Amino acid sequence: MSKAIASTSRNLDRVFCPRSVAVVGDKQALGYMWLKALSDFKGEVYSVQIDPSELPGIAALGVPNYSSLQDIPGPVDYVISSVPRAAAPRIVRDCIEKAVGGVCFFTSGFAETSTEEGTRLQREITELALQAGLNLIGPNCVGVYNPRIGLKHNAAQQSGEGGPVGFIAQSGTHATLFSILGAINGIRISKSVSYGNAVVLDSTDFLEYLGQDDETRIIGMYIEGVRDGRRFLRVLKDVAARKPVLIWKGGQTQAGARATASHTGVLAESAAVWETLIRQYGAVKVHSVDEMIDTAKALLYVKPARGNRVGLIAMSGGQSVTITDTFAGAGLEIPLLDERSYDRLAAFFDIIGGSYRNPFDISSSFFMSANGVSNLASMLDVMEKDPNIDSVVLEMFPLIRPQGAKDTGDKDPVLETLSEFRARSEKPFMVIITTAHEESLSTEARKRVTGQGIACFPNFERAAKALRRHVDYFRLRRELDSCEQAGI
Amino acid sequence: MSKAIASTSRNLDRVFCPRSVAVVGDKQALGYMWLKALSDFKGEVYSVQIDPSELPGIAALGVPNYSSLQDIPGPVDYVISSVPRAAAPRIVRDCIEKAVGGVCFFTSGFAETSTEEGTRLQREITELALQAGLNLIGPNCVGVYNPRIGLKHNAAQQSGEGGPVGFIAQSGTHATLFSILGAINGIRISKSVSYGNAVVLDSTDFLEYLGQDDETRIIGMYIEGVRDGRRFLRVLKDVAARKPVLIWKGGQTQAGARATASHTGVLAESAAVWETLIRQYGAVKVHSVDEMIDTAKALLYVKPARGNRVGLIAMSGGQSVTITDTFAGAGLEIPLLDERSYDRLAAFFDIIGGSYRNPFDISSSFFMSANGVSNLASMLDVMEKDPNIDSVVLEMFPLIRPQGAKDTGDKDPVLETLSEFRARSEKPFMVIITTAHEESLSTEARKRVTGQGIACFPNFERAAKALRRHVDYFRLRRELDSCEQAGI
Repeated sequence: MSKAIASTSRNLDRVFCPRSVAVVGDKQALGYMWLKALSDFKGEVYSVQIDPSELPGIAALGVPNYSSLQDIPGPVDYVISSVPRAAAPRIVRDCIEKAVGGVCFFTSGFAETSTEEGTRLQREITELALQAGLNLIGPNCVGVYNPRIGLKHNAAQQSGEGGPVGFIAQSGTHATLFSILGAINGIRISKSVSYGNAVVLDSTDFLEYLGQDDETRIIGMYIEGVRDGRRFLRVLKDVAARKPVLIWKGGQTQAGARATASHTGVLAESAAVWETLIRQYGAVKVHSVDEMIDTAKALLYVKPARGNRVGLIAMSGGQSVTITDTFAGAGLEIPLLDERSYDRLAAFFDIIGGSYRNPFDISSSFFMSANGVSNLASMLDVMEKDPNIDSVVLEMFPLIRPQGAKDTGDKDPVLETLSEFRARSEKPFMVIITTAHEESLSTEARKRVTGQGIACFPNFERAAKALRRHVDYFRLRRELDSCEQAGI
Repeated sequence: MSKAIASTSRNLDRVFCPRSVAVVGDKQALGYMWLKALSDFKGEVYSVQIDPSELPGIAALGVPNYSSLQDIPGPVDYVISSVPRAAAPRIVRDCIEKAVGGVCFFTSGFAETSTEEGTRLQREITELALQAGLNLIGPNCVGVYNPRIGLKHNAAQQSGEGGPVGFIAQSGTHATLFSILGAINGIRISKSVSYGNAVVLDSTDFLEYLGQDDETRIIGMYIEGVRDGRRFLRVLKDVAARKPVLIWKGGQTQAGARATASHTGVLAESAAVWETLIRQYGAVKVHSVDEMIDTAKALLYVKPARGNRVGLIAMSGGQSVTITDTFAGAGLEIPLLDERSYDRLAAFFDIIGGSYRNPFDISSSFFMSANGVSNLASMLDVMEKDPNIDSVVLEMFPLIRPQGAKDTGDKDPVLETLSEFRARSEKPFMVIITTAHEESLSTEARKRVTGQGIACFPNFERAAKALRRHVDYFRLRRELDSCEQAGI
């Protein structure tokens, strides 16, 4: 039986959807971060701690404490271990004996330190786990996040509502950042995992698991290196054919690769090899947590792209030049409209100092006029019907309220217009609200637009890059699917 | 007498530092935006408005109103005109007769609309102004901002304290954005101007003026096109030899150039030509308002760069990989340190799971240990003394308080350590505080760091780009200066 098949048969359900969690070695010096992160967990939480000075702190959190995993009365699905590295082999043996569903080692100081002791201890826990078929995550990681059941690795993460995005990260910081920034950006997580040094379970195992997970419609990955490249690519090809897989490769530069060696002890492959393979296997390459969020947002909220020709509407002359430079610079086309569109526009576009070639410059006085909202709707309809335009992008000011509308309580006719357009148009549609005056106003406005299921971005550059990736993704999938059908 | 010399002799002091301002045609429909923007102005403000329905609104603002410029009793240094375009020629004649210092036309709808009427009116006001030697700014712009005397074009702009950065923008939106985002980022403005269609006064006139202005140490420009390219380059060469000039060129792409034609009616030159000329004349090219702010920030707050080798300190393993990829990707080097530095580090670096090759990964537990702050100081000192390192970049978490420090009131020893290092080290030093958990925490932390005179950036990418431009600027200046000395 090959290693690949062995891994395929691993059942990670007890790890991702545990009914009981034990934390080994949480302590005051860490602010009891693990037990506090689990305060929303919908299941049993146990502590294992033998230091008597820590017991009152743990008791104060209302968590029952035991001297060992074996002493816990019921079954334990998932263990989080934060013990000093020298104690790690003992905890692995306890996990095996207790027949837990899996264990995540937050503990670090293993092979990534290049010390003899760290390397020896890493080899020891690896061999023990592999022999027993124990699902070991890490070491040097923060493990699983499942918001639906309140399984968190950071108290700042949300719980309660799950979402359609799975995230697999070699780095704990990136897993945490993605979940928190994602929540602000309307990206809700199904399940995520940080897996550090990957001595037993590697990115491929998690990709396979989330690939089969019905709740997960899009998968994001932050990878520093993979152990079994062939198996990774086989699984990637299979999963990417069914759902979008976004890959952010850490250690893309020579100096960055040196950093991955110190971080998770893996050797990063060359950036060029990754670039080619990712494309060939139908995945999407991103370069940062922001790009990951933006691309996921486009894939979740924007309808499939059929071409790269964009209609742009900006709120001033200067912004109309900048938005055009930015979208054209990202490799998108900003074409002239069809003649019939200009005939339609001439009938109602009455903004002195504005213009409507493409980009449109609707000027700040637009929404001050009585028929501003109906003109916006007409303008969007022109874009929708124009055969030269594939996608529509609109810049808005943070506080747009048509003449006469009250500050709160009133329905917002601008937001309704955008929401209706988004619902009825088959063309990709994005809104951009840049930062002006006060960031909090812009943040609030973005939240309201996102709340309508509309992809909303904080600047031209992020929106342009996201649309470009969105367009490229659908073109690549069409190409790969026709190759598939042609049997190539 | 050549046109260039004629322009050189123009005195723009009455425009940039007026003692009296008249607003012609402000009205309710604009929310009396001009008169409200002038509420802090340290001088006489007059209104000129003949529509009787507007008079109560103007009276309510406490501004004396007159039926014409001629009726204003004293001299008028600066006029802001917001009349309909058909009335523009009459206002120009009035300005000439009143012998004002200059006039800015907010009015738009001229040649940029490609209509016969707009083009004819633009020609008329241009000829009138040129014949009389009237300093006409615009049309289709928002004119001058001088915070020191409370001369603003937007109520959200700051007044009171001036700064060292001059800004010249063909777009009113970009002038407004730069002043407001700049204030948040520690970039204070000496004087700025938005000049729209540039029919009389062009970017070159303002560059020459700010080049001679003692208050202005750095000049930023947003340009869509210039009328007299040779004169522009001659003035640029002269000014850039004395102070940094940052240029953001609007209409860099073909589609963007079409947008500039609709915006300010200018034809944008090819991006490649600009790129080459800007470099050749010792200026710095930027591509957005963010890049303008970041580069100005580096030039203002960071000591001159002598090379491109960077020492990086990040707050987690994942971030250490990402910061390295980002800085290396921006064309900077992240070298190994000198052997003696590693010997020094080994004596005190005790963070399990951290590392100190370069990048340094100091891990989140760093500041929880009792000697975290003194270790940070030692680490910075190692970087300072290391012969392989030219610049030092430190990632910080938003809320860093060493063990035992109170939430408020207490002095912040981390901030003091950074501030001391910044003061004594001759190496460029930057801090990055990314967004985590709550944006407001990060904003607050950045403000505190900036308040110490330390260049602080919101993400790795913006910091890396700014440092790269900073390094390039000083290298370019050294090259140009040695050419100059060699008489080449």
